[in-house]
Amino acid sequence: MNPLRYDWMRLEEVAAELFTRVGVSDHHAHTVAQSLVHADLRGIESHGLSRLPIYMKRIEAGVVQLDQEPHIAMQNGATALVDGNNHLGAVVGKHALELATSLARQTGIGFVGVRHSNHFGTCSFYAERSIEQGQILLVLSNAPASMAPTGGIGPFFGTNPIAVGIPAGQEAPFLLDMATSVVARGKIALAAKKGEKIPVDWAIDQDGTPTNDPKLALLGSLLPIGGAKGYGLAMFIDILCGLLTGAASGPGVQSLYENWTQPQDIGHVFLTIDIEHFWPLPVFQRRMDEYIREIKAVPKAEGASEILIPGEIERRKMMDQKAQGVCLAPGIARELEQTCADYGVDWGRARVGS
Amino acid sequence: MNPLRYDWMRLEEVAAELFTRVGVSDHHAHTVAQSLVHADLRGIESHGLSRLPIYMKRIEAGVVQLDQEPHIAMQNGATALVDGNNHLGAVVGKHALELATSLARQTGIGFVGVRHSNHFGTCSFYAERSIEQGQILLVLSNAPASMAPTGGIGPFFGTNPIAVGIPAGQEAPFLLDMATSVVARGKIALAAKKGEKIPVDWAIDQDGTPTNDPKLALLGSLLPIGGAKGYGLAMFIDILCGLLTGAASGPGVQSLYENWTQPQDIGHVFLTIDIEHFWPLPVFQRRMDEYIREIKAVPKAEGASEILIPGEIERRKMMDQKAQGVCLAPGIARELEQTCADYGVDWGRARVGS
Repeated sequence: MNPLRYDWMRLEEVAAELFTRVGVSDHHAHTVAQSLVHADLRGIESHGLSRLPIYMKRIEAGVVQLDQEPHIAMQNGATALVDGNNHLGAVVGKHALELATSLARQTGIGFVGVRHSNHFGTCSFYAERSIEQGQILLVLSNAPASMAPTGGIGPFFGTNPIAVGIPAGQEAPFLLDMATSVVARGKIALAAKKGEKIPVDWAIDQDGTPTNDPKLALLGSLLPIGGAKGYGLAMFIDILCGLLTGAASGPGVQSLYENWTQPQDIGHVFLTIDIEHFWPLPVFQRRMDEYIREIKAVPKAEGASEILIPGEIERRKMMDQKAQGVCLAPGIARELEQTCADYGVDWGRARVGS
Repeated sequence: MNPLRYDWMRLEEVAAELFTRVGVSDHHAHTVAQSLVHADLRGIESHGLSRLPIYMKRIEAGVVQLDQEPHIAMQNGATALVDGNNHLGAVVGKHALELATSLARQTGIGFVGVRHSNHFGTCSFYAERSIEQGQILLVLSNAPASMAPTGGIGPFFGTNPIAVGIPAGQEAPFLLDMATSVVARGKIALAAKKGEKIPVDWAIDQDGTPTNDPKLALLGSLLPIGGAKGYGLAMFIDILCGLLTGAASGPGVQSLYENWTQPQDIGHVFLTIDIEHFWPLPVFQRRMDEYIREIKAVPKAEGASEILIPGEIERRKMMDQKAQGVCLAPGIARELEQTCADYGVDWGRARVGS
């Protein structure tokens, strides 16, 4: 049986319509919808429309708030701090990115720290926008505690992602989007949702023992990449996103799923570099193309048909799914269908060919 | 038999004197000497005085040049490009760091890219200086090809380090200094020098097979941390340090040991953040102290007596070796003694108690 396919633009419409039903303005509803469908298009189901119901529930519960727009709390030279006012993460993130983009146009580089934000989707959503602007983006975020420091067994750090977007010319752009844990917590949550087992090197249980049960892993701690190196990277990201911005840090960052009385208070950092301050953009793009082709020409390992650059698989998936329709896991599609029914939104139109 | 101990300040004097014998100015000779002894103090032998003879040989061979100072090739807003003019890496790095520090004082953040540089020692040398200035430093460098891209077997990337320094108050500062490979190439070179075997997960030989022979590993490729994630980080660092600055990139970066006709043309990036643009420094330092204490209070794994923060082991080693004297491996001490004899420099005074 072929999986059902959905039209990505219609999915955005449906998702945006759902957000408006819980009081999100039309403009912001489209931003968040784009962020979620962006993740599904790239095959990152864990950060896609599977998160829509929880976003809506948090708005309805009042732990995500819509009454105040994100605002600039400080701006000085090439730096700024944005207070997200506990609005939806993608709305806050887009606001902060636009400010960072504009700072980099003026001074070559922009540094925007963000506090009082929420889960802001995949980092690649922002990186893709910077790439379109001819800028380099480094984006960092902290996240609810799920990873132990080296030597410890209790969760302290989030999977604190780091992402980098760099434009190329004819070749696919460089788009690295990685958790500092071996895998993102969302992947384990999705395995739990699907009832699948996980590899034993992803996480430890509450006693510090490796486990293949995603439910025990979610109660225990994730493992960082490269041992103490990943621990160091996660801590650096937490200090910048949490301590420097004034957001929560460590276990002070609240869960998206389990805490219904407090805001998440996530912190992010958007660091933009305007390439035109260094080189004419086409010159840089040409160098990037040559560089990428050099990498692809490296002798290949047995069984590897091609050397891929970061983000290339996801970009191909996106192009395919834009053309053929987005695959949604049956469980996720059913949940969205039910949510649409609850709010009187037409789900059927999202099906390809409808 | 107790290892021989050497006085760190006398080691700096001796090293500086040696550099002046091959034409380095007194001021620059001290900078490079400090950089090398800094590494030995922190227990990073691979980047310490073991590199002094090769630095000298490269100056004598004319592949490192002393006739032109590093200069600012571009300065615009919060960004700058420094041309190292193929001077010693630590001299170039210190110049670029000072510029980045001053940019960050003005605009909150400073971004200095560097081209035409050489091996610049440990990144922690620069991070320590930024910490003293109440700034956060992110420092990146590319390096001669030694690591394969994921899916490839030939070396393309260097071990491209990333380092971050962040000041604390009473607690030890955060000082992460890591290669994006499982280990730095210098550690394998040192094992080869000492005739020791290496763990099999560090590197592959020329055919792509894991090896415990450091000599075969040096001919093959190092492995990145976290698989494709480490590959992505190494590529990001190479693009910023190489393509954005105009330095060499990928296999275009020349070997410190094997290429006697071309400059290395290494690129670096120094990114500084001035904490006072965000918070009064003592407020930030107090938060860092509290944060570090929270981490140290996480329940410990069986066998772990303490949770350490990045850079803490090396800092303790440094304090111990400043007080008790620096341990040098016998082979390294002999080579330095011989070099001193060749240049008529008094080596004996470096011994503790001499």
